[in-house]
Amino acid sequence: MSDTHSSAANAIRMLTVDAVQRAKSGHPGAPMGMADIATVLWQQFYQHNPANPDWVNRDRFVLSNGHGSMLQYALLHLSGYDVGIEDIKQFRQLHSKTPGHPEYGYTPGVETTTGPLGAGIANAVGMAIAEKTLAAQFNRPDFSVVDHFTYCFLGDGCLMEGISHEVCSLAGTLKLGKLIAFWDDNGISIDGHVEGWFSDDTVKRFEAYGWQVIAGVDGHDPDAIASAIRSAQAEGDRPTLICCKTTIGFGSPNKSGSHDCHGAPLGDDEIALVRNQLNWPHAPFEVPDSVYQQWDAKPKGQQSESDWQSLFEQYAKAYPALANAFRRRVIERTLPSEFDALSAEYVSACQQEGADMATRKASQNAIGHYATLLPELMGGSADLAGSNLTLWPDAKGIQEDPAGNYVFYGVREFGMSAIMNGIALHGGFIPYGGTFLMFMEYARNALRMAALMKVPSIFVYTHDSIGQGEDGPTHQPIEQLANLRMTPQLETWRPCDAAETAEAWRQAILRQQGPTALVFSRQATQAQARSAAQVANIAKGGYVLVEPDSAPQLIIVATGSEVGLAVTSAQRLAEQGVAVRVVSMPSTERFDAQSAEYRASVLPAAVPKLAIEAAHKDFWYKYVGTEGAIIGMDRFGESAPGGVLLTHFGFTPENAVHTAQALLATTNGDSNG
Amino acid sequence: MSDTHSSAANAIRMLTVDAVQRAKSGHPGAPMGMADIATVLWQQFYQHNPANPDWVNRDRFVLSNGHGSMLQYALLHLSGYDVGIEDIKQFRQLHSKTPGHPEYGYTPGVETTTGPLGAGIANAVGMAIAEKTLAAQFNRPDFSVVDHFTYCFLGDGCLMEGISHEVCSLAGTLKLGKLIAFWDDNGISIDGHVEGWFSDDTVKRFEAYGWQVIAGVDGHDPDAIASAIRSAQAEGDRPTLICCKTTIGFGSPNKSGSHDCHGAPLGDDEIALVRNQLNWPHAPFEVPDSVYQQWDAKPKGQQSESDWQSLFEQYAKAYPALANAFRRRVIERTLPSEFDALSAEYVSACQQEGADMATRKASQNAIGHYATLLPELMGGSADLAGSNLTLWPDAKGIQEDPAGNYVFYGVREFGMSAIMNGIALHGGFIPYGGTFLMFMEYARNALRMAALMKVPSIFVYTHDSIGQGEDGPTHQPIEQLANLRMTPQLETWRPCDAAETAEAWRQAILRQQGPTALVFSRQATQAQARSAAQVANIAKGGYVLVEPDSAPQLIIVATGSEVGLAVTSAQRLAEQGVAVRVVSMPSTERFDAQSAEYRASVLPAAVPKLAIEAAHKDFWYKYVGTEGAIIGMDRFGESAPGGVLLTHFGFTPENAVHTAQALLATTNGDSNG
Repeated sequence: MSDTHSSAANAIRMLTVDAVQRAKSGHPGAPMGMADIATVLWQQFYQHNPANPDWVNRDRFVLSNGHGSMLQYALLHLSGYDVGIEDIKQFRQLHSKTPGHPEYGYTPGVETTTGPLGAGIANAVGMAIAEKTLAAQFNRPDFSVVDHFTYCFLGDGCLMEGISHEVCSLAGTLKLGKLIAFWDDNGISIDGHVEGWFSDDTVKRFEAYGWQVIAGVDGHDPDAIASAIRSAQAEGDRPTLICCKTTIGFGSPNKSGSHDCHGAPLGDDEIALVRNQLNWPHAPFEVPDSVYQQWDAKPKGQQSESDWQSLFEQYAKAYPALANAFRRRVIERTLPSEFDALSAEYVSACQQEGADMATRKASQNAIGHYATLLPELMGGSADLAGSNLTLWPDAKGIQEDPAGNYVFYGVREFGMSAIMNGIALHGGFIPYGGTFLMFMEYARNALRMAALMKVPSIFVYTHDSIGQGEDGPTHQPIEQLANLRMTPQLETWRPCDAAETAEAWRQAILRQQGPTALVFSRQATQAQARSAAQVANIAKGGYVLVEPDSAPQLIIVATGSEVGLAVTSAQRLAEQGVAVRVVSMPSTERFDAQSAEYRASVLPAAVPKLAIEAAHKDFWYKYVGTEGAIIGMDRFGESAPGGVLLTHFGFTPENAVHTAQALLATTNGDSNG
Repeated sequence: MSDTHSSAANAIRMLTVDAVQRAKSGHPGAPMGMADIATVLWQQFYQHNPANPDWVNRDRFVLSNGHGSMLQYALLHLSGYDVGIEDIKQFRQLHSKTPGHPEYGYTPGVETTTGPLGAGIANAVGMAIAEKTLAAQFNRPDFSVVDHFTYCFLGDGCLMEGISHEVCSLAGTLKLGKLIAFWDDNGISIDGHVEGWFSDDTVKRFEAYGWQVIAGVDGHDPDAIASAIRSAQAEGDRPTLICCKTTIGFGSPNKSGSHDCHGAPLGDDEIALVRNQLNWPHAPFEVPDSVYQQWDAKPKGQQSESDWQSLFEQYAKAYPALANAFRRRVIERTLPSEFDALSAEYVSACQQEGADMATRKASQNAIGHYATLLPELMGGSADLAGSNLTLWPDAKGIQEDPAGNYVFYGVREFGMSAIMNGIALHGGFIPYGGTFLMFMEYARNALRMAALMKVPSIFVYTHDSIGQGEDGPTHQPIEQLANLRMTPQLETWRPCDAAETAEAWRQAILRQQGPTALVFSRQATQAQARSAAQVANIAKGGYVLVEPDSAPQLIIVATGSEVGLAVTSAQRLAEQGVAVRVVSMPSTERFDAQSAEYRASVLPAAVPKLAIEAAHKDFWYKYVGTEGAIIGMDRFGESAPGGVLLTHFGFTPENAVHTAQALLATTNGDSNG
């Protein structure tokens, strides 16, 4: 091992050890163990430009074992990204560039947020899908404008997690030859030596997925690592797993090879011994100039990007239309300028058409329409295309057509969702993917990660209530809607008819700052009448759909398939002389973001309120108060035809009228009391 | 193939086809495809007693591809369980014994609820763990009182789901030789032929897990199936996967081998053709007596159970103490009679000791104490034993000691949780398992299934808020508590100190009708003073912890680590002359189950309320109303030391006092207005 390699790798180790010690928390073991692999990859192979972390044709690097964040921060710092030594010293402190786990948007060069194990490799699979599909759509002979690798580091924990199975299996099927993963095979997880709980033959497992597996690489031998990477790059069709035998906490005389160094500072005494063992006489956070110079990736990175720029200029001359599309979709990441107006026209057309239909069907219509405007739409479903209605006439599976626009994800909800986030992070596509609302749960943490990262993934959830019927309680969401709505930075839409569905899709696409969940019914809904002003109000998330002639005595708030019920109930109450306003609330998050004045105009405090939604009732206290009434669910569903269940659980005009009358009696009683 | 085999298998097929047609919904394809396998297994191998579905030494059968529920209903009906032909006719109707998916508790002989794919095989792994461990604990030379197989049917969907990786990997490591799974290798999933999204070499994959794999079995050849089952039973150490090539919808001339028959009725015309092809001239729901007689498993089942009873009587003479323990734990499923009183004493002792500590530490103390009373406790953690503090001094991993009481689950949250459900369903153990509250999400659907089935799994979740600190937003729960609390039939406890923690554990153990989530802090909490009456009130879920001398002007409601803050804030307000009641609310579900009178005595409507909890604020409108105040979270956390974050996000006495004053000003303003 050359001295220059050693000192380069040891710079990573010592920055890690000292930063963790200073923070009094963190994970030194993995960065110390993977420092040699990282040094070889980043110094000899990794194509990037530290001066422009957004260069579109850069290689992608994902640290799926995100607790080893100091490895990534050290790499970014040493390579010349805008991550200074003061930032390293601020490891794990409030508002620093160096939080406990790599956070997308906090640190230049961090491609995705990692920490929840297995999610990183899923994001990496998504990036590799995006690269491969984008290349098929845009590259032309002599013009490989999209041509980069996706590298991923992962540990035993990632391999134990189920999501690693879902996404690595799919990566093999999709022949993602430019995905290269490095397994940190150190034999240690938090509970100790892994034999007692992790005895897979990982080589065989990944061969079963159709990967190229390079087994038995010494993760501390730079030549072996470099040779493995060359073999990986040379493979065209199969993703590659490089199995690197490493020593966790390499360099620590007393703690290496043990879980003692996994997730806690080494302590001052041991750190002194590490300094000695690694022959690193420098003070904490001091890196010799010679080491910085060796690491500096700025000149080469600048050259790489400028070479690519030249290529792209040639490409633009040869293929101006493609280049324009590439600029819009990949570089500027903007929608077609006409999308806003044309999609608004489509919403109006749906309103005028006034057709009754299931909102999942209205969703399919909206997809089909918007897809004609958006070549970047990348659809998919977790093996429920015909139920979610996520296919449209021009959809082409990337399995058959590499330049396609649809992914048959198989029965892999979590994998699909985390892959979508990877596709969105890569750029060039607007990914959406469908499953039943119930199985959002399988994918729940990927949804949260999309929200945390503010990536515009669109999650399509159909069969959204007990109205789905015979499949029974395992398939009937109750508490899931509240869970979506309480997820920060996520927007949820549960539209009530075709016009609201078209607007919900429109808002999901227009939203560039975070993910959207679109929640659709299996069963038919009634088209509602709206003025042009009301159509415009849908985008506000909640609005007055029906206004009585006199001042409202009662407000019924409803969403989705229960809006029709609310309108019918209001009519019956009107016949009894009760003035009822109906508020449709397709997106509570969007409504909450409106001005206090607007919100009070829709839901004035003084008027009693009844909420109707075939989902958990507790969510609605926020809008109707403890003195209001709620027709909702507080138990699991049953197996029976959907209409039978809706009646059984009280989603009928009779029950709504009865509940409204009881509420008015109480309220009047109160005001008389 | 013998005529008797064929007619037996065709009875399953025709009951399925006719029931699905009558219900106008359901999944005929899998039952038709797996009918031969099921017939061989149930007629030649399956040890059970239809007259007593609770016989403790029966084999277990799990239909992991639960959408094929009619297969199981037909088996139960034909074998002689209390599932009559009228029940079959009521397939998928309200309150029938034959819901859309197999539901535990609805149908005699259904061992677990399935439908969410992959969960069934996980439950089966749990049952096999329970069988193996119980056998090691109770069996003695010549007395194999625990000795049965666990059989599981699964489809391509189960194999694609990540959870199948987690649990099958662990099953191999744990050498569950009596687990026998049958893969319905029909090459079809809902989206069509699976090659485009599922191309694993499944044989190789399961060999990598250390399973015996019997490849290439013709799933329509009874002899081949029987031979494979014999090989599976003969294998002592390795679980077995029998790969059965089948034709989905076998018997349907026009729809077999296609996804057309996966999830929809065949239609009357096609059914007529099926009748013809299968040579089944009988009317719908009509099964010849000869076929019923062939299927009747009652006499053999009665004999099997009575042989086992004789064995157990001998065993009881030889090992009376063991037999008593077996009776209590496995047959009667009751707690030791002294548990109630002794655990109450422990709670009082914790109260008297009054030690400040993290509730995760108090949890470890409680586990250690209760474990001395409960040999049936089966602990575990998803590779976070040292962080969740789920180990106690006498814990022994079943990996080292087959008669142990702790499972090192590895980094497999979803697998762990669904395995726990399988252990609980099997009987003989009270399973608990730990992870960070954040990673409850990975396991979320298993938690829901525990609630749906009302099994007493205990889920331990530590690091329960932003107070966990430096790991940052990926590891800091916000919306998770509300999600737990809105899950029907689940009880959630977030105790504030050691005494409440001891009581929470006590209630979780006493609760036999459903699962419990125990939510603990990473950081220290302050022990609260309580009278004996207040200690007794903890079990009510919410109670008055601090009462002012005069009538309260304000109520502060808090849970967990925020109760100390509430008490401090109340003291400060008292110094300013404001009479403040503090309500500790460790379990909102339990509080909701109290009488309206009790609830009104704790939280009277007329007194303004402030809720404080370091979790999503929206949940608390239910208790404080729209006119109340909430100090909670409505955004993601950050990476910084826990104390810094709590201050940053307003969990300080200063902010609480300020918020309380503002609330009182508004409320007084209102009442003056």
